[in-house]
Amino acid sequence: MARGDNRDKQLSAPTEFAAGNGLLDRRLFLQGGMAIGSAMLLSGTDAAAAGETAIDPRPKWMREPGAEFRPYGFPSLHEDEVVRFASPNRVMRNNGASWTPLHLLEGTITPNGLHFERHHNGVPSLDPEQHRLLIHGLVARPLEFFMSDLLRYPLRSQICFLECGGNSNAGWNRIPSTAEAGYFHGLASCSEWTGVPLATLLHEAQPGEGVRWLIAEGADAFAMHVSIPLEKAMGDAMLALYQNGERLRPENGYPLRLILPGWEGVLNVKWLRRLELSDRPAMARNETARYTELLPSGKARIFSFVMEAKSLITSPSSGMVLRQRPGLYQITGLAWSGRGRIRQVDVSADSGKTWAPAELQEPVLPKSFTRFRIPWRWSGAPAVLKSRAVDETGYVQPERKVLLAERGRHGFYHYNAIVNWAVDEQGSVSHVYDDDDQDLGDHPPVDAGWD
Amino acid sequence: MARGDNRDKQLSAPTEFAAGNGLLDRRLFLQGGMAIGSAMLLSGTDAAAAGETAIDPRPKWMREPGAEFRPYGFPSLHEDEVVRFASPNRVMRNNGASWTPLHLLEGTITPNGLHFERHHNGVPSLDPEQHRLLIHGLVARPLEFFMSDLLRYPLRSQICFLECGGNSNAGWNRIPSTAEAGYFHGLASCSEWTGVPLATLLHEAQPGEGVRWLIAEGADAFAMHVSIPLEKAMGDAMLALYQNGERLRPENGYPLRLILPGWEGVLNVKWLRRLELSDRPAMARNETARYTELLPSGKARIFSFVMEAKSLITSPSSGMVLRQRPGLYQITGLAWSGRGRIRQVDVSADSGKTWAPAELQEPVLPKSFTRFRIPWRWSGAPAVLKSRAVDETGYVQPERKVLLAERGRHGFYHYNAIVNWAVDEQGSVSHVYDDDDQDLGDHPPVDAGWD
Repeated sequence: MARGDNRDKQLSAPTEFAAGNGLLDRRLFLQGGMAIGSAMLLSGTDAAAAGETAIDPRPKWMREPGAEFRPYGFPSLHEDEVVRFASPNRVMRNNGASWTPLHLLEGTITPNGLHFERHHNGVPSLDPEQHRLLIHGLVARPLEFFMSDLLRYPLRSQICFLECGGNSNAGWNRIPSTAEAGYFHGLASCSEWTGVPLATLLHEAQPGEGVRWLIAEGADAFAMHVSIPLEKAMGDAMLALYQNGERLRPENGYPLRLILPGWEGVLNVKWLRRLELSDRPAMARNETARYTELLPSGKARIFSFVMEAKSLITSPSSGMVLRQRPGLYQITGLAWSGRGRIRQVDVSADSGKTWAPAELQEPVLPKSFTRFRIPWRWSGAPAVLKSRAVDETGYVQPERKVLLAERGRHGFYHYNAIVNWAVDEQGSVSHVYDDDDQDLGDHPPVDAGWD
Repeated sequence: MARGDNRDKQLSAPTEFAAGNGLLDRRLFLQGGMAIGSAMLLSGTDAAAAGETAIDPRPKWMREPGAEFRPYGFPSLHEDEVVRFASPNRVMRNNGASWTPLHLLEGTITPNGLHFERHHNGVPSLDPEQHRLLIHGLVARPLEFFMSDLLRYPLRSQICFLECGGNSNAGWNRIPSTAEAGYFHGLASCSEWTGVPLATLLHEAQPGEGVRWLIAEGADAFAMHVSIPLEKAMGDAMLALYQNGERLRPENGYPLRLILPGWEGVLNVKWLRRLELSDRPAMARNETARYTELLPSGKARIFSFVMEAKSLITSPSSGMVLRQRPGLYQITGLAWSGRGRIRQVDVSADSGKTWAPAELQEPVLPKSFTRFRIPWRWSGAPAVLKSRAVDETGYVQPERKVLLAERGRHGFYHYNAIVNWAVDEQGSVSHVYDDDDQDLGDHPPVDAGWD
């Protein structure tokens, strides 16, 4: 057997470029008009043999009985590096975040075992038989629910992303992060959540006049609590009991989590125990001292709930190597917006000089991960890859210098700028800034920890 | 605290029935026009206290630090009964099936750890670095691919169900199965699969004149092999590498599985090692002696690839008890069709005398699980619940007696009749036939084993 020697011929066939530096029309792959040609072409003798008889010898796993059935399955041991990466606070035990390895995943659904985590005091072990949800405050009918009560209610399912407000915050730093894509942008995951529409329960509790906010509290040792505007609570908010079909995992709030599609992760309170209806927000630590941003004007952004549109090339991405020499590659990544559907993702291979639209994987669902893909012929010369999301409101994901000009240098949250992956002549991919960071004003040191 | 004493008043509010024996309009829950009222209503004193201060004492899990981060998460220990149920062949080791607990799940995505399994000689442990896929036979260019080669190809994602041709086969028996819904109908699961369109690779291999079939072989010790018509292979067939975002699980074919959306599970060959292009089918054991059906005419159904439309109420279902006395319940279940989208699911609470349309959870995707829901007021009297799927081709899921009349009594595969769940006066749910089985002709004993 030998590598096919007519591969170069195949590779040279498609020559209509969609944008500079090798980007090809997004439909080329779909039309079958292009061959990667990475297979081994069997020699004449091999081919004749293969055509007549099955290939032999059979590998050892065909010569011994396989393993038995398991009640609950786990990934292959060969995939044991596909894990979340924890970045714990150095002082406070079990306070921190752990990151979904987006660069190692495909499609749009995040498996439950790899959903990102952000805990303030570890993962509590709740007894689902004892845990209750209280709805109280400015209501005519304060109510308390066991989980068995909630399970009697009409359920609703929605596929949506969750993203921590602090996701991608290394982007605020002066020096580009060297982390892999998932360990830089992977405080974001996407699941099918199923639960009780919160509005159903609020109708039963009968909110009083003047109610504007709900204060949601979790049953962890941090007693995490935040404030939610009534309109969102009466909208698409959900009390989730199931994630990707099964009951929530402990680290995702078992047995009950508030889900606010498209809104900042911290508001999606895990281990939910209490919803207090009020005429004012709690002004809790995590909506005043944290999860807010001091702007250049001296004012602070507060209650910045919606996660704006964002995209990220997951492959090729930081730390990867284009091993197969110059040739055809598929550029792929994820885009999402807290305001609705992704309308378009543009990709550039020449650091933003020219752009071509990527193919969006159907179905494109609102407030969900959307997978994009575009073919690229790498010439072997250095290149800088970018992706830029546009959502259904027309919002365009900003370049980093635009984001910094608007928000200043005190940021820690809501970083959604365009990401640059530089490919060098050896095919190594790394994260670069293409702005001149030194011109972008003063920058205090970012505390990279979580607290 | 005490249960709300105005609950009965609430429950009596919606009185417009959509069909007999308590079925209500599917939109009632969505409109907020109905309250389950299963919460505890707090007393005046409790309510005042709750309104002023947070409820206390805090449970023990709020008074101790939580557990640490885990690289890969697992379900709560409280959910350790949510598992697959294995029905192994009594003679042949690790030959058998294991069932997804559909009655314990919600939404439409099956978590990877609970995807159904059907193995003929256990789960092989392949080395993904060594495993190769061969495309050979009547091709101009026989090709062999390492998994790293395949991962360079353009990928595509699709959410679709997989269903074993032998799913629900207890329905052919004279006596109704007493198994829970998932352990009766749970050789069906639904995932987001991502992989290389098979057509892309076939184009590269250049099929010869006269090719009509592909013979697909797995790398297990059974060397499972079956025949696939060329049209399907050139259509939506996929070589899947990822399931719900992560690489395939071993029991689902790691590292490579053939996915034929909507087609019988056995054809979706796991641990795929070989695709031989041919002018004829293999006439292998599992498409002649098995996975075929002797019809009343004496002819046998063979190559019955497409899984016809089917539906199943997952809650309430066999073995469950309506514990909350007569009152409001949500009837929910799953429907799917190998021919495309589900158009409608009708539900009956009076054994098929009257029907009402259920709400279908959006998005309704082709060849995918579709979750349906409808509210029901159980009067406390005996009832028989049914669901009936209609797909986009107009195909209507048949009653059991219709299916038996058409297919006879020799069936083992492709059972998709309407299921009847009887609710007795105590609220206990059990599986019943509402046909007079004795009138439906001779019936040889079904070998319930798998081989």
